[in-house]
Amino acid sequence: MKTISILDLVHEELQRVEQKMREASQVEYEHLAAVLDDLLKSGGKRLRPALVLLSCKFHPADAEKAISLAASVEMLHTATLVHDDMIDNSLVRRGNPTLNATWNRGATVLAGDFLFALAAGLAAEVENVRVMSIFAQGLMAICSGELKQIFNSQGNLPAREEYYQRIYSKTASLFAASTEAGAVLSGAPEPEVQALREYGRTLGMAFQIVDDVLDFVGDERELGKPVGSDLRQGIVTLPALYFHEMHPTDDALIKALNDPGEEEVRAVVAAVKESGAVESALDEARSFAQGSRESLQVLPHNEYRQAMLDLADYVVERRW
Amino acid sequence: MKTISILDLVHEELQRVEQKMREASQVEYEHLAAVLDDLLKSGGKRLRPALVLLSCKFHPADAEKAISLAASVEMLHTATLVHDDMIDNSLVRRGNPTLNATWNRGATVLAGDFLFALAAGLAAEVENVRVMSIFAQGLMAICSGELKQIFNSQGNLPAREEYYQRIYSKTASLFAASTEAGAVLSGAPEPEVQALREYGRTLGMAFQIVDDVLDFVGDERELGKPVGSDLRQGIVTLPALYFHEMHPTDDALIKALNDPGEEEVRAVVAAVKESGAVESALDEARSFAQGSRESLQVLPHNEYRQAMLDLADYVVERRW
Repeated sequence: MKTISILDLVHEELQRVEQKMREASQVEYEHLAAVLDDLLKSGGKRLRPALVLLSCKFHPADAEKAISLAASVEMLHTATLVHDDMIDNSLVRRGNPTLNATWNRGATVLAGDFLFALAAGLAAEVENVRVMSIFAQGLMAICSGELKQIFNSQGNLPAREEYYQRIYSKTASLFAASTEAGAVLSGAPEPEVQALREYGRTLGMAFQIVDDVLDFVGDERELGKPVGSDLRQGIVTLPALYFHEMHPTDDALIKALNDPGEEEVRAVVAAVKESGAVESALDEARSFAQGSRESLQVLPHNEYRQAMLDLADYVVERRW
Repeated sequence: MKTISILDLVHEELQRVEQKMREASQVEYEHLAAVLDDLLKSGGKRLRPALVLLSCKFHPADAEKAISLAASVEMLHTATLVHDDMIDNSLVRRGNPTLNATWNRGATVLAGDFLFALAAGLAAEVENVRVMSIFAQGLMAICSGELKQIFNSQGNLPAREEYYQRIYSKTASLFAASTEAGAVLSGAPEPEVQALREYGRTLGMAFQIVDDVLDFVGDERELGKPVGSDLRQGIVTLPALYFHEMHPTDDALIKALNDPGEEEVRAVVAAVKESGAVESALDEARSFAQGSRESLQVLPHNEYRQAMLDLADYVVERRW
């Protein structure tokens, strides 16, 4: 796991979150225990738990419950990834084989369900009814967004509004849940809760747009997957939408969506990179990140607020 | 949906539970809404919500929260059925086509996840941290039991203890969660909570054993599926275990497990029915039901306790 230096402030707590997740996933069947361990070790930037931890710093929060909440959010995120990979039939994530690449689909579905159960258990440890409700709403937003994506026939060009709804469900909803729940746990007054929720939402939107940009311009080794992955799955993201707006008569994109061969996908990736669509998409991400920074105005000026401001810079500048 | 007259006492509340589930599952995509509606309408005996409702009758419980809790438990149960059917590749349940018989597996997994989310949301409405924790533990027990079943190579004869663990995870854990959570919601003193939990657990054990017996001796039209379904999936239940104990040298069972053709399965079903194994299994069920009745001794004698006593008779006498 690579670490993000902005998160040094909560480094020690993040270690405890790792420990908490490992403890929660101790199970009696060796095979499953090994798989859960791999899943949790392979795991990402830990932005969501960091957001929980930072968001409860503005008022005195129970330290142990903050760790449980942070672990719960990351566990929920991991659960959705396991099901996503199965649904998309993805064989690689973060450079590692996915669970469904090595297991049968029944075991994969159940492992995801088990992670949901662990996440719900950790959320229950927080012993806060509003946190529980935020947790449930977050999961609902994620699932309903994915269902929508399945029901809206793929391979079509979505309206930009639809794209925004999709990335809200997929990513920003859980970012927002993380910061809102952290704030609630700390007993923050309602305007701060809403400000932190809005910070999480806009940060998540910026983060996902950059993710979608990196699928065009990223380094394949850093990403741990080939560029153009979204197109191969028939998913149209913001850079492709901008490209289409700039070149409405260019049919390379439509062709690649209808027949996502290696050559067609590479051609669209190259065309999007040359078109300025990437820069336009990044402008959108920067605008959301600016929204994140502005949301923090109601909060006291301290090192935690500063880390959150820095994080808003990081999400648009990152290269992996 | 057939109804069980013992449940007349909570009939009106059960109607409200149906209504609550329908309201919770209102979603904006017509196609999904129709599917959820079908899933919920096709649905079973509603024993779990009835157990919740009866279990909160011994002390004054918030009526609206009781409905939410009952709906949550049934929603969770429905979610696990959707994933189960996908994992087992079952095409029919309760005489109706399963979701995975008509949908692709991605949509089926997500629909199950969405039902989990709805269940968590309804549980959160109860606004009781212990109820939330019971909910999470219940889901964990179900998932870990199913994973165990996948990892313990199928087609082997389990020890009887293993069978009991399996039916606890599969069925009794959620029955126990239903009665425990109902008791907790009503503010029952701890000995009553434990007594009601034990009632639910033993009732669930009896219920599942009878389910497993009906898979040998039931009426296929009543069951809505062919007899011998478990054997076809390589699952060995109590009647088959007793049969094997009675006839250790008879290899019909092993043959059917290794090669579950129609003829092999029918032969084992016939042999088990003739062997007295069914009666031995029913004796076990009766013994669990007796345990259920005894658990209720600490509760005040009233019509709700009587209905629960009657339910313990019903689960072993039922024919569907």
